[in-house]
Amino acid sequence: MTKQERAMNTRHALIRSAAQAFDEFGYTRAKLAGISAGAGVSSGALHFHFDTKAAMAAAVESEATRTLHALARHAHRKSPSPLQALIDSSHVIAQQLRRDVVVRAGFHLNCRTAHHSEVNLHQEWLECVRRTLERSAAHGQTPPHAVQEELTATVVGATAGFEALARQDHNWLSRPSLTGLWHTLLPQLAGPKALTQLQAAGTEAVINATGPAPAQLTAAHAPGI
Amino acid sequence: MTKQERAMNTRHALIRSAAQAFDEFGYTRAKLAGISAGAGVSSGALHFHFDTKAAMAAAVESEATRTLHALARHAHRKSPSPLQALIDSSHVIAQQLRRDVVVRAGFHLNCRTAHHSEVNLHQEWLECVRRTLERSAAHGQTPPHAVQEELTATVVGATAGFEALARQDHNWLSRPSLTGLWHTLLPQLAGPKALTQLQAAGTEAVINATGPAPAQLTAAHAPGI
Repeated sequence: MTKQERAMNTRHALIRSAAQAFDEFGYTRAKLAGISAGAGVSSGALHFHFDTKAAMAAAVESEATRTLHALARHAHRKSPSPLQALIDSSHVIAQQLRRDVVVRAGFHLNCRTAHHSEVNLHQEWLECVRRTLERSAAHGQTPPHAVQEELTATVVGATAGFEALARQDHNWLSRPSLTGLWHTLLPQLAGPKALTQLQAAGTEAVINATGPAPAQLTAAHAPGI
Repeated sequence: MTKQERAMNTRHALIRSAAQAFDEFGYTRAKLAGISAGAGVSSGALHFHFDTKAAMAAAVESEATRTLHALARHAHRKSPSPLQALIDSSHVIAQQLRRDVVVRAGFHLNCRTAHHSEVNLHQEWLECVRRTLERSAAHGQTPPHAVQEELTATVVGATAGFEALARQDHNWLSRPSLTGLWHTLLPQLAGPKALTQLQAAGTEAVINATGPAPAQLTAAHAPGI
């Protein structure tokens, strides 16, 4: 392993350890000493890579953003229709928020600091939902007289709420739980014919392409409510 | 004013000042010195009423809980049907979250610490929604084959999401924004006949009974999305 590869590995270990600390204690209470110990490196090594806790948080947020963008692009490339792509995106993002501490911590940091960040993930999701519902309408999938902005706000609010509630009970972001949400919302978003072609549980090929979920999270169960 | 009345006034001023500090800086970063200064009292007076920051937070949370319970009871007493009472509750609670810093800070503290508190406001809201949808079904308002738990989760998730998004943009909890949410959800919750009797914008008599909102928040505007 070259010196550069070792440095990259240390950097990755620090980002993961920081994400674990932010996820467990929150940004304010996370300690640099705990983060370097969690990564198995000295505090000197931590300071070689990151000047401040804020710099570590920015790295976690940036890594999470990259992953979420890649997942959304993947869903939109592979799904059979714009509305199905939106459903599939919600499932793969929920799956990643459950299983990947860097994505989860980075997403939460972004919720807190979106006004300081280059990226505002909630705003991006809102624009993605709005665009999708407009495109779906163009393909005749959405009732023409639906108030698009009310529908957009409902989809964004409900998915944001499931994410927020999952911070205390991760079953809110389970596949059955999100499937139930789409069961309820889809009749408002698609006409009867389009509805028969949509899969509230997501497209298997798209969701499985991102790899199987850890065993403890794949078991089918009702949302924890 | 008696000595006891003065002590009660100081206590109320401290609770309000603590709520303002928690709302602006978050619990961890709020400083006791700033809280006593904000209430116009000495730090000695603060410590006479509250031993610790945690005790102040508990008082804010308890005051918020009392207000929210009273609002929900009022809506359920005055509204013409269980489902309308749910809609009205959401409007009066949203109104109070926007205008009353003690309710807002107390609610956010409860979201963070529900596992330590006697009261879990999200859980209470969930049970209220579940009970209402069951009662509505009994009165023929809900389609009989609807999956009640999916509907409950959708209503709870969406309202929780609007509250979470309002932390960055309070228009998410404006009356037009919540009205749009109910426009979208109600066709899933009520049959066509019941639907014509429901007011997504809430019952005027119930909402106005809790007093007019401050001027800057009553102007009709689209959700800030």
